[in-house]
Amino acid sequence: MAQLKGFKKLVPTETALKMLLDNLWFKQPETETISIYEALNRVLAVDITADEDIPRFDRSAVDGYAVRAKDTFEATQFRPKILKLTLDDELGEDEAKEVWTGNPLPKGADAVVMLENVKRLNGQIEVWAPVTPGENVSKRGEDVTRGQVAVKAHTRLKPYHLGIIAALGVSKISVFRTPKVAVLATGNELVELGQKPSSGQVIEVNRLILSMMCRELGAETVDLGIARDDVKEISRKIKVGLDAADIVLTTGGTSVGASDLVPSAVNSIGEPGVIVHGVAMRPAMPTALAVVHNKPIVILSGNPVAAVFGFEVFARPLILKMMGLEHEPRPIVAAKLTRRVSTALGRKTFVRVRVFQQNGEFLAEPISSRGSGIISTMVRANGYIVAPENREGLLEGETVHVHLFSPFEV
Amino acid sequence: MAQLKGFKKLVPTETALKMLLDNLWFKQPETETISIYEALNRVLAVDITADEDIPRFDRSAVDGYAVRAKDTFEATQFRPKILKLTLDDELGEDEAKEVWTGNPLPKGADAVVMLENVKRLNGQIEVWAPVTPGENVSKRGEDVTRGQVAVKAHTRLKPYHLGIIAALGVSKISVFRTPKVAVLATGNELVELGQKPSSGQVIEVNRLILSMMCRELGAETVDLGIARDDVKEISRKIKVGLDAADIVLTTGGTSVGASDLVPSAVNSIGEPGVIVHGVAMRPAMPTALAVVHNKPIVILSGNPVAAVFGFEVFARPLILKMMGLEHEPRPIVAAKLTRRVSTALGRKTFVRVRVFQQNGEFLAEPISSRGSGIISTMVRANGYIVAPENREGLLEGETVHVHLFSPFEV
Repeated sequence: MAQLKGFKKLVPTETALKMLLDNLWFKQPETETISIYEALNRVLAVDITADEDIPRFDRSAVDGYAVRAKDTFEATQFRPKILKLTLDDELGEDEAKEVWTGNPLPKGADAVVMLENVKRLNGQIEVWAPVTPGENVSKRGEDVTRGQVAVKAHTRLKPYHLGIIAALGVSKISVFRTPKVAVLATGNELVELGQKPSSGQVIEVNRLILSMMCRELGAETVDLGIARDDVKEISRKIKVGLDAADIVLTTGGTSVGASDLVPSAVNSIGEPGVIVHGVAMRPAMPTALAVVHNKPIVILSGNPVAAVFGFEVFARPLILKMMGLEHEPRPIVAAKLTRRVSTALGRKTFVRVRVFQQNGEFLAEPISSRGSGIISTMVRANGYIVAPENREGLLEGETVHVHLFSPFEV
Repeated sequence: MAQLKGFKKLVPTETALKMLLDNLWFKQPETETISIYEALNRVLAVDITADEDIPRFDRSAVDGYAVRAKDTFEATQFRPKILKLTLDDELGEDEAKEVWTGNPLPKGADAVVMLENVKRLNGQIEVWAPVTPGENVSKRGEDVTRGQVAVKAHTRLKPYHLGIIAALGVSKISVFRTPKVAVLATGNELVELGQKPSSGQVIEVNRLILSMMCRELGAETVDLGIARDDVKEISRKIKVGLDAADIVLTTGGTSVGASDLVPSAVNSIGEPGVIVHGVAMRPAMPTALAVVHNKPIVILSGNPVAAVFGFEVFARPLILKMMGLEHEPRPIVAAKLTRRVSTALGRKTFVRVRVFQQNGEFLAEPISSRGSGIISTMVRANGYIVAPENREGLLEGETVHVHLFSPFEV
């Protein structure tokens, strides 16, 4: 029997991530040019600069009548101002022209009277309320001014960004290449989904969970399957991952016990190998970080919840960086803790919570579970809080920031 | 020239949506069976009930030594308890067995001593701290108990849901079919992206924005292109959409002016036609809702921001319902308004805001814009607040609930 021993020292999470990045030679991610119709949630690689004003001309923001604002200054409901309707592209004094939303203003016009504030007569209108210059007008360049950066590089493209880019007449854009993440599970006790587990065996699900978390970020995944607890088999599969992907995640076999095979396997592949083993967090303390062939390997616990939080703290920022995003926070909500939570002094503690609303207040209920192997707690929870290293517990009623996995009802 | 006239009365948004739903004969959405690997963000159609306990056996939650808890009760750092190591599958009195995370406990064992609290000697261990029964053990059924509903029907499937389902040995699941949304733009002034707009012309972008909002929800889209301001052309294209999709969205031509062609086109297709025209909200007041061939048609403004909010209030809940979701809130955050906002009495006002953190407080800065045609405000904003019909303004410093489009930095 091999000797079990404890971790010598735990590395703070920020230091650990920095040590990993310092050992990677980070080049700008590769780019590709794609159609704007395929660009939702991709990350823009170059600034989109407006080469025209948007709108391209002064246009009406409402249905109504284009006017010269000063002609309406004295209009009231009791003494309406009469304006003569014209079809010309230029307004004279006391003239008005019917316009619909989006229509260009005729020359000379500087405002639009909404149809609600007008009575139409034969060939003329009664204006019941004054308008100020610019009222109900979308001014040329009001949305985007020529020369202005309309959407910055390193932006994750949402529907509105795509709308602005299209409005500028741009249909193909340069985005960062989608990173590939290879995922390996290790453990003699594991069987594939679809196989019937016999006594003492467990269906492997961490690969599925981690792969889906990668896809939620917009990464592609490469499945490396399950490796037995064997240094050669593990290192062979990790090598396949290093060839096929930009980053390798492993789950299982990270503890310092006799099953501590993944770090050994990684070290057998190349330099510098394992950089950090054991991080000052709970769960996910036995997480290890490595670099081989200038690619990062994140060695996660076999406990699903620990694997998820190890992913959250190390793999997620790495993948985002490879996508061209410096950072992408989860939605945060401030909520009051419904009860005291004990946390570990000297370790950053990640507490799963369920946020809900009661009497107009946001409350965060800690989801208790002794082990970190309990996937169902991740379903009951809709977010997590992070207790800092210097706290021994969080108080009932204390306001905490919850990082949301999923929204909650209000 | 046609007569411009105002809306007779504005219908409150909830009433409008209810009127639309009352005119639809809503059948349960169709289902299909898919692989769990393709199921991320799909909506589960039937409850997944556990036919086994998860974990399937009592297993160790840590690396350490399985023990009978009562054998350790008197252990202290100064008077450690000595236990004899065994390789058997059953523990006798004062015996311990090495276990790694996930290993089944040997018979008779009810707790695990973490390796940090043990000194290993030749063939035996010194236990320095007592454990209680169940400590560091994942009990059989602790995660999911046989017979329990592990994931409920009508759940949007996230990585953790998929993990639980897979842990139960289920690899194929029944989900609701993805709804199809057809999107049409109308307007003589519009040109397609890729064409050069001449004077007075505008590149059409609402279809792109609305289609991408549909895809963010997980719906498929059908592009109906641009229709000229012509009742026959509009109704022909809407008919194509009704044949190809579950819901039709149009943008443009909804005002009560002479360009009010889409409602006329819809009414020419079939019964009951337009049910609501003019809703008590700002922006998006001229939104119309219709039903033809038992399919909903949401007739949105041509102003991009009004189209987005009309989508948010009417199309989004409809699409979610067709996906099998009763409701899906956006993430909500409570924040203090940085300045007063004027709103319209009698209308629900949607105010774009940018949420940010300052000195530990969440602040919401209204993004001001006169028109609702300004797409760039949607990029500057990361969410919106809803001012109720009975408020004439919101106060500086007032706490509001922000519905987030995108997360913000903390």
